[in-house]
Amino acid sequence: MLIDLSEACEFIRNCNDAVILTHQSPDGDCIGSGLALQDILKSLGKRSRVICCDEFPKRYDFMTKCADNDTNFTPQNIIAVDIADAQLMGSLKEIYADKVQLCIDHHISNVNYAQKTLLNPQASATCEVIYEIAAALGVTITDFCAMCIYTGMATDTGCFKYENTSARCHEITAELMKNHKLKYALINRNMFDVKSIGRIRMEKAVMEIMEYYLDNRLTIICITSDILKSMNVDGNDLEGCASLPLQVEGVEVGVTIKEKSTGVYKVSMRSANEVNVSDICKLLGGGGHIKAAGCLIEGSLEFVKKTIIDAVRKGMDGE
Amino acid sequence: MLIDLSEACEFIRNCNDAVILTHQSPDGDCIGSGLALQDILKSLGKRSRVICCDEFPKRYDFMTKCADNDTNFTPQNIIAVDIADAQLMGSLKEIYADKVQLCIDHHISNVNYAQKTLLNPQASATCEVIYEIAAALGVTITDFCAMCIYTGMATDTGCFKYENTSARCHEITAELMKNHKLKYALINRNMFDVKSIGRIRMEKAVMEIMEYYLDNRLTIICITSDILKSMNVDGNDLEGCASLPLQVEGVEVGVTIKEKSTGVYKVSMRSANEVNVSDICKLLGGGGHIKAAGCLIEGSLEFVKKTIIDAVRKGMDGE
Repeated sequence: MLIDLSEACEFIRNCNDAVILTHQSPDGDCIGSGLALQDILKSLGKRSRVICCDEFPKRYDFMTKCADNDTNFTPQNIIAVDIADAQLMGSLKEIYADKVQLCIDHHISNVNYAQKTLLNPQASATCEVIYEIAAALGVTITDFCAMCIYTGMATDTGCFKYENTSARCHEITAELMKNHKLKYALINRNMFDVKSIGRIRMEKAVMEIMEYYLDNRLTIICITSDILKSMNVDGNDLEGCASLPLQVEGVEVGVTIKEKSTGVYKVSMRSANEVNVSDICKLLGGGGHIKAAGCLIEGSLEFVKKTIIDAVRKGMDGE
Repeated sequence: MLIDLSEACEFIRNCNDAVILTHQSPDGDCIGSGLALQDILKSLGKRSRVICCDEFPKRYDFMTKCADNDTNFTPQNIIAVDIADAQLMGSLKEIYADKVQLCIDHHISNVNYAQKTLLNPQASATCEVIYEIAAALGVTITDFCAMCIYTGMATDTGCFKYENTSARCHEITAELMKNHKLKYALINRNMFDVKSIGRIRMEKAVMEIMEYYLDNRLTIICITSDILKSMNVDGNDLEGCASLPLQVEGVEVGVTIKEKSTGVYKVSMRSANEVNVSDICKLLGGGGHIKAAGCLIEGSLEFVKKTIIDAVRKGMDGE
């Protein structure tokens, strides 16, 4: 059931001993949302822990290492942040899929799986929604909370670069900068600029294996286990490589195919301009945003590629 | 003489038939400032033209091709935007160096060469100062003007990424987004993401020729005419390559050396964190911002490199 901000605030005021769920392959927005919400709950005298089926990547240590995860309670409330579909809980799905009482999200593709869902698809990031909750609750935002909210908004918008950047998100950022010592340049440098030597090697290799289709409007990068092994890089170095192909002039859709396990491929699709990749991925059993979406496809690599090329061609033609 | 906002507004209210000067190697901020100011002057019924010693790069066509440059008047007023030093006028220096009546700038290194200077070193970009002028004058900002101001602020802050990003700049952006149809995602894509095939080739090559010094805290890239020729890229593809080395984990200062003419090298210096490259470049006869500065050095390439390494070592040691 979709609820409004005041109902969500009421739920939060009445909750306690909460588990805050984040999605698999956690990113800056779900981690930031989870930890910011935890900080807000703490201000209200409530205990919580933020959990995920995957380990939090090391680059988010500046948030996760400062979190105040309480493990000494039996959960009374289950809250999901930034999770559009219970499938995205990964291995935690079995425990929590049908137990989420409150979901806070900004994905228009949210399937409304929770008992109550506060959904704001106009928000740049779930962190923007979390800010509105803190403001509506009248909770004083701590420096740590400000940092988490900023990080979520910055990472989900590509540092205020993409279409999903809202005026409100700039407004909130101005507020956070005025009221807190926010190390935004350092955060952004670590989120967007710094690359490990492995990552740089990987990017070079990726540009070399990029394949062009549909009059160079579609590019596909296949990162198989063999390629990964030959590069000697770890999985974290691959985060964000889905947007690499969009750097090339004229490319409308960039697709990255990663081998998840034998015969199972994770597909990330990015749109440079007008093509709606959320629609395309939905047809392939996935979902996401208009300009950034994904899906899982099973089969041979050749089958996966052909499926993608056909789907993107249709999407481009507006079929 | 340094003046305040109201004095600058008075000057603008009383001026007419103005030449608006932008700096050599024009970037998004000086072009945006010049054209936004022209648009404001037009709203006040005044004629102006925006000029530069260099051609405006093609990537700024979306602004420059829509400008309303009036060439049918004898200049009565000379205004400089985003020009910290008359040296930066390039070949126009001889005509205008001592004729600038009003300089509008945000560079703390501004040498106060104009008759009147409105300087706001807290501003992210000169475009931020131009917005304050429009607001103080009570001029209604057009969609075109909003686009120019946004572009200047976005390009000078690396899309709100760097230290110089002010809370005010986020606030202004929110205002511009609320009141105008601003194609920010398209602007940002063209400013920050899209790379020509030549540029991509160049980046790959640059990463390969990068030299490491001072325990890998300093990197130097030398782009000589020979390298440029062998890459078959044009000069525009090189814009922004000064920040490439800072992508590498652990690098504190990234230096790009470009051969301007035989025995003359243009040095761009970028700081990742604490090192003040404005101070370092000042010692070498240049200047700029704390995290992004430059200078010209004459001599052999080996001499230029040694000079830079020594200066950066001293700067890092806080000498």
